[in-house]
Amino acid sequence: MNASENLFTKHEQTLKDSLEALKNRTYYSPYPENPKAYAEDADQKAKAYISSIMNNNFTEINQNNSDVYVGEEISPYLQLGIGVKYGTKSIEDYIADAESAGKTWAAQPLETRTGLLIESLERIKSRFFDIAYATMHTTGQGYMMSFQASGPHSNDRALEAIATGYRELSIHVNEADWVKPMGKFELKIKKTWKAIPRGTGLVIGCSTFPVWNTLPGLFANLIVGSPSIVKPHPKAILPIAIVIAELQKLFNEFGLPTSIVQLAPDTLASPITKNLSEHHGVKTIDYTGSSIFGEYIESLNKTVFTEKAGVNSVIIDSASDLKAVVSNLAFSASLYSGQMCTAPQNIFVPASGIKTNDGIVSFDDFVKMLTEGITGLADNPKAGAPTLGAIQSEVTLNRIKEYSESNAHTVLASKHIKNEEFADARTATPVVLVKDSSSKSEFNQECFGPILFVIKTNSTEESVSLTKELASTKGAITCGAYTTNEETRTLIENEMNAVFTPVSFNFTGAAFINSHAAFSDYHVTGGNAAGNASLISTEFIVRRFVWVGNRYA
Amino acid sequence: MNASENLFTKHEQTLKDSLEALKNRTYYSPYPENPKAYAEDADQKAKAYISSIMNNNFTEINQNNSDVYVGEEISPYLQLGIGVKYGTKSIEDYIADAESAGKTWAAQPLETRTGLLIESLERIKSRFFDIAYATMHTTGQGYMMSFQASGPHSNDRALEAIATGYRELSIHVNEADWVKPMGKFELKIKKTWKAIPRGTGLVIGCSTFPVWNTLPGLFANLIVGSPSIVKPHPKAILPIAIVIAELQKLFNEFGLPTSIVQLAPDTLASPITKNLSEHHGVKTIDYTGSSIFGEYIESLNKTVFTEKAGVNSVIIDSASDLKAVVSNLAFSASLYSGQMCTAPQNIFVPASGIKTNDGIVSFDDFVKMLTEGITGLADNPKAGAPTLGAIQSEVTLNRIKEYSESNAHTVLASKHIKNEEFADARTATPVVLVKDSSSKSEFNQECFGPILFVIKTNSTEESVSLTKELASTKGAITCGAYTTNEETRTLIENEMNAVFTPVSFNFTGAAFINSHAAFSDYHVTGGNAAGNASLISTEFIVRRFVWVGNRYA
Repeated sequence: MNASENLFTKHEQTLKDSLEALKNRTYYSPYPENPKAYAEDADQKAKAYISSIMNNNFTEINQNNSDVYVGEEISPYLQLGIGVKYGTKSIEDYIADAESAGKTWAAQPLETRTGLLIESLERIKSRFFDIAYATMHTTGQGYMMSFQASGPHSNDRALEAIATGYRELSIHVNEADWVKPMGKFELKIKKTWKAIPRGTGLVIGCSTFPVWNTLPGLFANLIVGSPSIVKPHPKAILPIAIVIAELQKLFNEFGLPTSIVQLAPDTLASPITKNLSEHHGVKTIDYTGSSIFGEYIESLNKTVFTEKAGVNSVIIDSASDLKAVVSNLAFSASLYSGQMCTAPQNIFVPASGIKTNDGIVSFDDFVKMLTEGITGLADNPKAGAPTLGAIQSEVTLNRIKEYSESNAHTVLASKHIKNEEFADARTATPVVLVKDSSSKSEFNQECFGPILFVIKTNSTEESVSLTKELASTKGAITCGAYTTNEETRTLIENEMNAVFTPVSFNFTGAAFINSHAAFSDYHVTGGNAAGNASLISTEFIVRRFVWVGNRYA
Repeated sequence: MNASENLFTKHEQTLKDSLEALKNRTYYSPYPENPKAYAEDADQKAKAYISSIMNNNFTEINQNNSDVYVGEEISPYLQLGIGVKYGTKSIEDYIADAESAGKTWAAQPLETRTGLLIESLERIKSRFFDIAYATMHTTGQGYMMSFQASGPHSNDRALEAIATGYRELSIHVNEADWVKPMGKFELKIKKTWKAIPRGTGLVIGCSTFPVWNTLPGLFANLIVGSPSIVKPHPKAILPIAIVIAELQKLFNEFGLPTSIVQLAPDTLASPITKNLSEHHGVKTIDYTGSSIFGEYIESLNKTVFTEKAGVNSVIIDSASDLKAVVSNLAFSASLYSGQMCTAPQNIFVPASGIKTNDGIVSFDDFVKMLTEGITGLADNPKAGAPTLGAIQSEVTLNRIKEYSESNAHTVLASKHIKNEEFADARTATPVVLVKDSSSKSEFNQECFGPILFVIKTNSTEESVSLTKELASTKGAITCGAYTTNEETRTLIENEMNAVFTPVSFNFTGAAFINSHAAFSDYHVTGGNAAGNASLISTEFIVRRFVWVGNRYA
């Protein structure tokens, strides 16, 4: 047993627990999501780290032959460039280095890869606070989301990929003596089976969740034995660069080539994503981003895993406690200023109002409650700024302004709120618009950012029908529904599930439709236009390798 | 427990045995492949059945609204039309009936579907002899292959699909109480998960293995809950029609709609495959056939599973007993006149000859041994005709003639042999051509039928390199190799596995590269140009359904 094999033993219990969690789908995470569970000085050290890295070259990553350094990230909190530059290589160098490193990586036994990858999550865990600040100053997420989403929750998804990979790669024996009775004699054939990785994987990141949306594909590639090239969004490189640095350091420590994982940064002016994607050396692609580019990725004749845009709806039929509903929705819509792929956009409410324990609440009264709820949260100095975070890009800010200012149906305009810590933070509270169900073209599209439509329908049946059509044509990642009626619940569930959209019913308190927990909730179903892949389904793993069986007479 | 649930109990042991076999990949089949294991009068009854069905409408299948009957199958043994006509519907009727029946089918619990489908294999088993004669008189397969390939071996693959489906659909719990510790309180969410089938599946059959290549996709669809429309090759309908009839009778017996499985026959003059494939109501497609049409199927924006053409090679480096090798190859190439997708086409032999226990056998001597072996088998009255069977189509016969007659490199011409039972049988023995490795363009393509190239290479290394390139560019389903050298074995294995091609080493006696056994051998890897799907991989099942999780606060 060599050193890297010892890592399997070290992490075997974590693997077993993960496999159990995958089966039972109960709550599981070995990485605490509360920053207080970590070293007391961790936060302070991370602040110092981020200060030191700003306006410097990022040298933690081994980029052989790097001659050009790029970097153009802008902190949404400072509205200043953070000045970190990352080494680049030529496309051909990325591919050649990946292929060379990939041969060594694929040759490692499954247990070795498993042990190393779970160990890497421990190393990444030691950088959670660095990653958190890197995430804040690229995505604009609030501190707590930056810590949790890019830290423990990303590690959870990575571990889920490792465990699912381990399960699928050991679904059957690797060798067998096959003996067939042939009447007068037996036919004996020795057989072996190998899971051959498809080869170099490209993982294309997004600007809002640079770690959370990258780790599943990255670790899925790694566990099956494929090398990976990570192409982050040019505006959100640092968080994933730190992750890759930890992976590379670990590989180096165990005598493995660092190019098993490479960082391929680019700029908006000189993008390299298409060149990489179309290169014959790239065998699989993981993509998170816009639908238009996602459809281009899907049109390539490759094994691709996409998460594109969708429109998430909330159907409100009836509720025992509408105040609790409104409070929940206000938070869901405000969290990271609606820049989550799971944020609600369209809220369908019948014109006849909402049945509650205290009688019927009219459509207009509901709208009033909702706008007050949103404003109340935004204006709360302890909750508002940390929940909303900052707006990642100017494009999103302009979209918010457009909907906020120039629309006759706006019932709540967006406003800038003060962030106590960052005076220059780019903030914007949610816009709320009221629409009639007949003006479909206005709400039947993703309006990324904190833009909410409250849509007046003829009935809950119409709400369901519109939500279903939207999920089917434009895609949906999540759907919220509030009803106290069992038949209505069944109707909503069946109709939405038929278009491969999951439904969360009657979420109040600390349950939010935005949250998808690893080991339990699939993220994106892969069945509608919001994406062709699901985190972490069996398919997400098995399409990355090919079983090849050899026979010996 | 209702009647159909009892079927699960009845077949639970078979399911368990199948799941064990999938894991251990040892020999397993509950359907004897020896015709003598069945009732003594079964063969006689089947002959009577086939006589009675000829020149009649096939009425065992329920085709509501059928107004047009079609059928143009020709027996390669009689070289006469068999005159069976099958009811057809409009494309819209097929889709509407599938969707309606599919709703009922998807609503059945997994155990109900599993029990019914394994029971259906018992019913099909009772028709093995009917199916065997139907297969002979459409495909031209010999009696024994017709019986085994369309009977027990097809049932094996269907059972493999059922078991793999059962495993994947029960990979985790269907409901759970998810409890997350939140410090001062616990967040409790009830969750459920449903595997939603993708919907109507189209299964497109081929002319040579109308049952064996149809059952995997058909039963994979059925186990996940999708209805299926089977579009057989117009020249090979009867064998699969009998299978569908048994499924429909069973569904009817248990009060389920017969349109869960439908037969959609057409004619060469009025094909319906493209209309069906492109219909928005068709969600998945299984296809076996030519590469050109397969690429068209793959280009559709659907979930598709293809088996296309490939070129199978044999690399001969060295052998302890070359006589045994030649005898094995002669049989592999002659079996069903080379019309198997797993038949060898190219045999690569070094110019320097083949090392054997009795010294080096020269290239020319090997060619002589091979042609003598093929002729010896063909001329053996007990073995020749039953092994060769008949040529399925005129197109194949013309191709054989072309290579046999007009090529300067032909060392063994094809000839017609007498079939004792069928005086008019369309028979043709294998053609053997000798080529130099430099004339790549002549052997670098599939020449469907009993056409063998013996290719003289500079070395085994060149043989491997040519075989690898061919598998990578044109696809390969199987590869044979003969070597007594361990290093050479490793080289061949690694090189061919890298292009996702399995290798069978040193097959002699009763082990043939043509055979792929269910529960053990994957058929097609899905990794090279021979097809994107693998029988029966996990991927073959999981791409047919989508996990959807609902949450209830």
